[in-house]
Amino acid sequence: MKQYLKLDEWSIIEESFDAIHQEISESVFSIGNGYIGQRANFEEKYSGPSLQGSYMAGVYYPDKTRVGWWKNGYPDYFAKVLNSTNWIGIDVHVNGSPLDLAACSVTEFRRELNMKEGYLARTAVVKMADGKQLKIASTRFVSIARHEIGAIRYAITPLNFSAPIRLTPYLDGDVKNKDSNYEEKFWNEVSKEVGLCTANLTLKTKKLDFHITSVMTYDIVKNGQKLEFTPSTSEKEKYVANDITIAAAPNDEIVLYKYVANVTSRNYGLGQLVEAATKSLNKATTAGFDVLLSEQAAAWADKWKESDIIIEGDVAAQQAIRFNIFQLNQTYSGEDDRLNIGPKGFTGEKYGGSTYWDTEAYCVPFYLSTADSSIARNLLIYRYKHLEKAKENARKLGFSKGALYPMVTMNGEECHNEWEITFEEIHRNGAIAYAIYNYVNYTGDKSYLGQYGLEVLAEISRFWEERVNYAPLKDKYVMLGVTGPNEYENNVNNNWYTNRIAMWTLEYTLEALDYLETNEPHRYEELLDKLKLTTEETAKWKDIITKMYYPEDKELGIFLQQDGFLDKEIIQVKDLKPGNLPINQNWSWDRILRSCFIKQGDVIQGLYFLGDRYDLETKRRNFDFYEPLTVHESSLSPCLHSILACELGYQEKAYEMYLRTSRLDLDNYNNDTEDGCHTTSMAGTWMSVVHGFGGLRVQNDELILKPFIPGRWTSFSFKVMFRGARLKVHVSEQSVTVFNETEIPAAIRIHNRDYSVGSLGMIQVESESVNTL
Amino acid sequence: MKQYLKLDEWSIIEESFDAIHQEISESVFSIGNGYIGQRANFEEKYSGPSLQGSYMAGVYYPDKTRVGWWKNGYPDYFAKVLNSTNWIGIDVHVNGSPLDLAACSVTEFRRELNMKEGYLARTAVVKMADGKQLKIASTRFVSIARHEIGAIRYAITPLNFSAPIRLTPYLDGDVKNKDSNYEEKFWNEVSKEVGLCTANLTLKTKKLDFHITSVMTYDIVKNGQKLEFTPSTSEKEKYVANDITIAAAPNDEIVLYKYVANVTSRNYGLGQLVEAATKSLNKATTAGFDVLLSEQAAAWADKWKESDIIIEGDVAAQQAIRFNIFQLNQTYSGEDDRLNIGPKGFTGEKYGGSTYWDTEAYCVPFYLSTADSSIARNLLIYRYKHLEKAKENARKLGFSKGALYPMVTMNGEECHNEWEITFEEIHRNGAIAYAIYNYVNYTGDKSYLGQYGLEVLAEISRFWEERVNYAPLKDKYVMLGVTGPNEYENNVNNNWYTNRIAMWTLEYTLEALDYLETNEPHRYEELLDKLKLTTEETAKWKDIITKMYYPEDKELGIFLQQDGFLDKEIIQVKDLKPGNLPINQNWSWDRILRSCFIKQGDVIQGLYFLGDRYDLETKRRNFDFYEPLTVHESSLSPCLHSILACELGYQEKAYEMYLRTSRLDLDNYNNDTEDGCHTTSMAGTWMSVVHGFGGLRVQNDELILKPFIPGRWTSFSFKVMFRGARLKVHVSEQSVTVFNETEIPAAIRIHNRDYSVGSLGMIQVESESVNTL
Repeated sequence: MKQYLKLDEWSIIEESFDAIHQEISESVFSIGNGYIGQRANFEEKYSGPSLQGSYMAGVYYPDKTRVGWWKNGYPDYFAKVLNSTNWIGIDVHVNGSPLDLAACSVTEFRRELNMKEGYLARTAVVKMADGKQLKIASTRFVSIARHEIGAIRYAITPLNFSAPIRLTPYLDGDVKNKDSNYEEKFWNEVSKEVGLCTANLTLKTKKLDFHITSVMTYDIVKNGQKLEFTPSTSEKEKYVANDITIAAAPNDEIVLYKYVANVTSRNYGLGQLVEAATKSLNKATTAGFDVLLSEQAAAWADKWKESDIIIEGDVAAQQAIRFNIFQLNQTYSGEDDRLNIGPKGFTGEKYGGSTYWDTEAYCVPFYLSTADSSIARNLLIYRYKHLEKAKENARKLGFSKGALYPMVTMNGEECHNEWEITFEEIHRNGAIAYAIYNYVNYTGDKSYLGQYGLEVLAEISRFWEERVNYAPLKDKYVMLGVTGPNEYENNVNNNWYTNRIAMWTLEYTLEALDYLETNEPHRYEELLDKLKLTTEETAKWKDIITKMYYPEDKELGIFLQQDGFLDKEIIQVKDLKPGNLPINQNWSWDRILRSCFIKQGDVIQGLYFLGDRYDLETKRRNFDFYEPLTVHESSLSPCLHSILACELGYQEKAYEMYLRTSRLDLDNYNNDTEDGCHTTSMAGTWMSVVHGFGGLRVQNDELILKPFIPGRWTSFSFKVMFRGARLKVHVSEQSVTVFNETEIPAAIRIHNRDYSVGSLGMIQVESESVNTL
Repeated sequence: MKQYLKLDEWSIIEESFDAIHQEISESVFSIGNGYIGQRANFEEKYSGPSLQGSYMAGVYYPDKTRVGWWKNGYPDYFAKVLNSTNWIGIDVHVNGSPLDLAACSVTEFRRELNMKEGYLARTAVVKMADGKQLKIASTRFVSIARHEIGAIRYAITPLNFSAPIRLTPYLDGDVKNKDSNYEEKFWNEVSKEVGLCTANLTLKTKKLDFHITSVMTYDIVKNGQKLEFTPSTSEKEKYVANDITIAAAPNDEIVLYKYVANVTSRNYGLGQLVEAATKSLNKATTAGFDVLLSEQAAAWADKWKESDIIIEGDVAAQQAIRFNIFQLNQTYSGEDDRLNIGPKGFTGEKYGGSTYWDTEAYCVPFYLSTADSSIARNLLIYRYKHLEKAKENARKLGFSKGALYPMVTMNGEECHNEWEITFEEIHRNGAIAYAIYNYVNYTGDKSYLGQYGLEVLAEISRFWEERVNYAPLKDKYVMLGVTGPNEYENNVNNNWYTNRIAMWTLEYTLEALDYLETNEPHRYEELLDKLKLTTEETAKWKDIITKMYYPEDKELGIFLQQDGFLDKEIIQVKDLKPGNLPINQNWSWDRILRSCFIKQGDVIQGLYFLGDRYDLETKRRNFDFYEPLTVHESSLSPCLHSILACELGYQEKAYEMYLRTSRLDLDNYNNDTEDGCHTTSMAGTWMSVVHGFGGLRVQNDELILKPFIPGRWTSFSFKVMFRGARLKVHVSEQSVTVFNETEIPAAIRIHNRDYSVGSLGMIQVESESVNTL
């Protein structure tokens, strides 16, 4: 764990340069606007270890599967987020020598990710090999007000010399993915033009024909005066540039403002790319850097108004939660229902594909509470649009009906190729069904069921129907050969969570059918017809629900994670000798599988999703049994435990679990932040504050809070959007205060009492100490 | 299934040329002598689809593991059988044009693998593109009398033209493995020399420094007269050659005799390779082709004397069983205890590594019965020598003691990288222990226990001790997370066979300890000391034996393949619609795993190994339950079923199962013979005849026979070596006759009556009809 970042409430700050941190910082200081994203690479050449990364949302490549031993049913391709044109590049030569921080002595350095206003800034004072000293100051951002635009202010100041400085702003499409399976490059050049102060470059992917066009322009200002100059131009395969040489003397400040528009064939016809990008670019250039930057600050202010969490008395916690919220908002803005949230967002390439069940289980709650309901709805529609592919996927695996959503996907097709996950971690289907419930329950928007939801629910239910089988010796339905959320067990029989979420899906599908029959009879008939859904099928579902087998241990009063779990040697994590943890780095996979240790909550996942169906004592018995066996080696694990610990009054445990998620990337907890940030688990951190410490639930159209305040904090507050109202909940040791920032009144239940908060109103209730055991 | 080979009792014969059969024939017509092996590639250039393959036993390369998703504990390398210097090559140019059967019209063609005398012959009449017709006749073999020597007689005869014929005998080391994980070539050149009528080439592997040296010489004879000539020489990277141009007129027969010696650094010091090979070569050349060939015939006559099986009344069966015996004898000759039997022998590259549990379970019985006992003993010592590596392997997976032999190996290190097999298919350890029992039981050589056997048994027992765990709810020891012989189930709990063979190992280890304590007390003490074996350990083993859990179904009276097997939907193979089989080609891996279908006998494996511990009715109930669920999609499956079916009197089933193994490669049953022959399963075919139809067992130092004759056969006979005697057992419908071909008398039990066969004596008893149901 490397803690080299400065604590600050609103910014991530690095105050000295160490090349061994560079790749980690490139991840942490990444910027994005939901469409364009970029690692915090330097603008000028950097020859040290670096993962160069510029990404365009929704542009991907089907990379040929790499596998040791093929299993029938594996996908042929893994659709990968694509590293695309490097548009930030500005090479610098001083008196003919390249500026390269890896070859300089860096005497001063400061990098800041300003989360309040949404930009990345860097200043450095360096001494080149020949003794020349100079200062660099850069600021850049990708505009959330203008999705196609990125802008850079790049300033260079000689400190102890006079010499010509050559600046080379460029676009470079000759890039590759670090994780390319066969070391292939994925882009071909389509066209390029390079003019005076302008250049454009259009590439297309070698497969699928995604086109991207980048257009750049720039101004140069010396000591506050805009320069007139005639650049020379250069180009090579997939590369266009201008070169400008400027005489500079000590303390001259030479500023290059680089503006780039990046567009893709996802949004424009092939013939219109250059024109569209140029038009966007011209508008941005006309506005100018300062206007663009103030637009950016304003747009971020709006985001923070909806989603900020304020923690008083703990700067590390404050910084961490804002970092998590900031990264989520950078990754997904929700207007485009073809996009989703990749596990690394725009901060790296690992895990390639875009969408995991993380989205439904962890991210949907964040967007439901912090943005307009249309945003979460678009995440749902994304899966609706993939329904046909999910049906094809089930057919491919040998099912005669139903839909199995992929484990990892970009366009609805499965990407992943580990049989125990691809074929068996089918609980993901349950999370996708649950997200529909979650959306409808939170927003009250039952129209979604008739419009889109029921079709997805019915096809998932059909999958479960065929995936279970009747076991005559038990006189029960069983589900064999699955992998639950705890991936440290594979190919188990009757995973309690999977059985439970499957049956819940059947129940909720039947409930949705009943609702539609009563409330939207015309649509109901239409859907029965479209789905060819018969009463035999629904009768079968009811039979399965009644006769489903759930493993449990009556004596311990717990649900069994899977058949035979108690045949394992049960050891608690605390009894492992030091040096064993994390087991995924210290143990063979064999030993992990044979052990009782749990990667992420499994039974716990069910007790969280279906929390209103289980009493506190049931939750307590299961938590008390399973949490001590849990190593939390998935970044998605601690948040759910934190939430459940809050519910059970285990305040210390709740805070311990919160700490494990919130600064995961800032403190490089898992020693892998250089690959990118753990974007989807950031939503889990938000959940531990709002669902955990805040105790937020929605039941029967009512917003419920049971807040408690971790001992180390003076107060905390969070924002919640609920049924049109935006509420700010402030929790201190003394009181819980809810401000309604909108004119829409809201009903709210705090510590089991009902309140209503009127237009722009406020209520305050005394804090309750939660039962601690 | 392509049946293009002619039936013949002693030869494999192909009578016309079809390029689509070439790669299959290259496998089937392979030749080998246990040290050198080679696919039946043409000597002259062939530009059609071909898998060029020359192999040297024990020379391998650690190819970097290729894997989709890494699991801790995977080996870094997969040790591969190496395709090495192509030493058979003789390029032919007619009037400057290359002779290439892919570019000719082949008007006559005959290829014969003469199994009686051990050579490969080919004749062809071809018409070249320009109309020139010529005849080729080649004969080649690798000498089993002189392990380093290969010899070729290559004759060419113009039929309708006069023209210069250029012959280019060469050695070419610029070869690669088809299955190279990263398309790498594995050889570097060390040295080469090319002289007049002689050349040598020394290569070394890029890793591990295996050196091989090939030295060639040749004579040319025209119309029976040895030619005097001065060749030109040529060389390039890893290639040396001579060129000789000879004037030829119609019906001139030009014969090139090529002699090659191949030696490796496994047997010689690096500085001696060229000298040693040259010495071997000179001796062979002096003897000349005809003498070498008659030595070869004599050596094979000796092999056949020990191992032949004669089937009368069924040429296809006769050819098949001889083919299987021939290939086994070509692959492993047993003098070198560093060698073993690869799944493809010397006939292809697939499955790379040399040794699987096939050796112990299937091949050891063959060599025990058909060769001197030192041969099977060397197979056991091979594993003894790997004991330290097997202990390291167990440590790597997290075991504090004991040995886990690898799933696939060359030098004792694990090669394989599928977690469900590498880490979980641990029953292999049981087969390795069982082979010790099998050897001692068959040969009566109990000294092996003290010399080598006990150490292996004790370390395997220690592994089992740590691999099981006590399950308090059952008050039993259990073994969780294994894959049994049936690889269509992975990561199951309490695989009956694995539990059973593990406990058998503990029992046999304790028995061996008792034997040594009584009979070799000094060695016993020495071994206790060497192994640091304590009475606590052996007491623990006894406790585990007593309290081991075996899944069973009392109502059906069967052992359960694994926990929960009866929760599966039980369907019989015969009830599958056509088009589903083979399921490994038609179903997703997911569907296979979820199904009840069995790839190869699992419970059956245990009932075969431990056949003397289970009564016939137990065997019958299990066979009747499991065989109908078995798809026999492993080439190792049918033979055991054939044997058990014989025991149960299911004669039709026994013959059906026999047919599935015996002509597997000759009829290309699995459509994959082009990759190489299924060498290890050939031993299973031998077992179905001798252990199945012959009913051979050894119990209490007595050879037991219960022969029956399949209805389609007039008679069959097989050879058995037993305690120094060689017996020929002849079975007809009327009688069973045993001839003792040696002077050592043998006791024998036939159909439950005891007989003895004296020196060179014979006994004849009436055949008994076996109970058929």
